[in-house]
Amino acid sequence: MTAKIFPTAQDAENAFYEALERCDLEGMMAVWAEDEDVICVHPTGPRLTGQDQVRESWARIFSGGPRARVHITNQVAISGMMLAVHSVHENFVIEGQSQRVGDAAPAPIVATNVYLRTAAGWRMIVHHASPAPAPAQPAPRDAPPKILH
Amino acid sequence: MTAKIFPTAQDAENAFYEALERCDLEGMMAVWAEDEDVICVHPTGPRLTGQDQVRESWARIFSGGPRARVHITNQVAISGMMLAVHSVHENFVIEGQSQRVGDAAPAPIVATNVYLRTAAGWRMIVHHASPAPAPAQPAPRDAPPKILH
Repeated sequence: MTAKIFPTAQDAENAFYEALERCDLEGMMAVWAEDEDVICVHPTGPRLTGQDQVRESWARIFSGGPRARVHITNQVAISGMMLAVHSVHENFVIEGQSQRVGDAAPAPIVATNVYLRTAAGWRMIVHHASPAPAPAQPAPRDAPPKILH
Repeated sequence: MTAKIFPTAQDAENAFYEALERCDLEGMMAVWAEDEDVICVHPTGPRLTGQDQVRESWARIFSGGPRARVHITNQVAISGMMLAVHSVHENFVIEGQSQRVGDAAPAPIVATNVYLRTAAGWRMIVHHASPAPAPAQPAPRDAPPKILH
């Protein structure tokens, strides 16, 4: 198999989230740098280091098959010649669960993604994800209208 | 006040953790880049962006005064010309609480710190911290010795 070349950090990020949605382990690992210093922190998890630990963790996560769509929002990108850092909100939408008007927005996962320019294009070298707290609950939808006396 | 110049990302990191231990708000903010894109995620917290949100959060955290020492371990550093990424374990030791032999090691905080080379030296631009799960409990110290029949 020919390794994929990602011409930009954004291309690598797009491929990362596509692989995550599809539970595509080979697609996921094609995004990561072939470097013993790769680092991955899944939400509420410990720090994993090295290709083997990172691959094993994604294999476990993907074993249940695709279940969620992920929408990336609030991206902040900081780019250098060799390194790029993207901070994003990952918004997971579980298949079959539709958001109702008036529902509280589900809490996003906050992710810091670091990409390294290698001889084989841009690759992920750090993924650090952690759950943000749930936002404040909105007023109930069927609350009686406020009457000002 | 003359702004501090940090000649390396490691100098900025040392100053960051010294300010954190001392609850020194001005020392802390001297480490951060003067950039509206600075990002800070405290353990279990939401993503904060910009100098104002970051300063407010540290002011709140520091309001109780110094209580803990922090030992940095397991550093992995990835360095470019303009950006440097340090992944570390932050090990907090609360004053007055000593670790007993046989106690489980407390769970560290995992932090991803990103530094930017600015005209005024290296500054922090991202701090993303999240609690690692507690390690597996060791065997109780006073468990009876195993007897093999």
